[in-house]
Amino acid sequence: MINKELLLKNLRNVPDFPVKGIQFKDVSTLFKSPVCLKMMVDELYEIYKDKGITKVVGIESRGFVVGGALAYKLGAGFVMCRKPGKLPAETRRCTYMKEYGEDSIEIHSDAINSQDVVLLHDDLLATGGSMKAAMNLVKEFRPRKIYINFLIELRIEGLIGREQFEGVAEITRLLEI
Amino acid sequence: MINKELLLKNLRNVPDFPVKGIQFKDVSTLFKSPVCLKMMVDELYEIYKDKGITKVVGIESRGFVVGGALAYKLGAGFVMCRKPGKLPAETRRCTYMKEYGEDSIEIHSDAINSQDVVLLHDDLLATGGSMKAAMNLVKEFRPRKIYINFLIELRIEGLIGREQFEGVAEITRLLEI
Repeated sequence: MINKELLLKNLRNVPDFPVKGIQFKDVSTLFKSPVCLKMMVDELYEIYKDKGITKVVGIESRGFVVGGALAYKLGAGFVMCRKPGKLPAETRRCTYMKEYGEDSIEIHSDAINSQDVVLLHDDLLATGGSMKAAMNLVKEFRPRKIYINFLIELRIEGLIGREQFEGVAEITRLLEI
Repeated sequence: MINKELLLKNLRNVPDFPVKGIQFKDVSTLFKSPVCLKMMVDELYEIYKDKGITKVVGIESRGFVVGGALAYKLGAGFVMCRKPGKLPAETRRCTYMKEYGEDSIEIHSDAINSQDVVLLHDDLLATGGSMKAAMNLVKEFRPRKIYINFLIELRIEGLIGREQFEGVAEITRLLEI
């Protein structure tokens, strides 16, 4: 059973990171707590254990920690979604717009196939830009189904993070702040 | 029980990455295989389950995948060792020499304490430069003990990777190639 108060208590807020005015939600303090790490992975396992997940796709690089543990626990494979130039073999790439300029993410071309049921995972949903790009990229592989999970959903007036995924993929999060 | 032949068969060799002449060992093909991922984590759990590990420190970012899963399985916390500027709160930093120029790694200042038993984990031992820096950094926290693990040890004439750790920390690897 998940204890949201304990997770919230262990989540660190770092003011003015990476730039002035941003209240950064630091999940590293959840990862370093054995109790919180176990609670998050166990809860996600309960949510997804009967969904037939065959691949967990983690978004670089905080998405690799709980994503790797969850893939292991689910008996699934783990796939890295990375910034350009990091993956050594042939990749598929998706370019997306950010507040200032554009960015890209990549997945190895042979990492997902049409028989896979994919769970996309990242630590935090804010604008949802990188997850939307990752979802569009995973769609190109034509998997049977795509699920999306965030540890934390950040609700700030004007942010439409979640809305981009509604009707496209089932989305869950452990905490909403 | 670990099946080294299966792991070797699933490990991808990528010629000329990141630069011409390098035979890059791509562990992403081990991560994406449910059987290989499970086998690696289970084997590491067997090796470390009685060592009293309280923190697994993974080196960015391939070290986060099996490192995260292993921390979960061991009931330990997980700590990220990252490139400068990525960790949001106060950090300790270690700068080290690379073939061309220098590089640095960081760990949050409150991520490890003197009661911890630390397992440092990364995917590949080649020159050992980044792991040596990570080890020196972890030493500054004065933990009770430091263990080191790599998934793969690369043995190439002239590489003295392992020798840097002998007599300093117990070191294991699942595969030697």
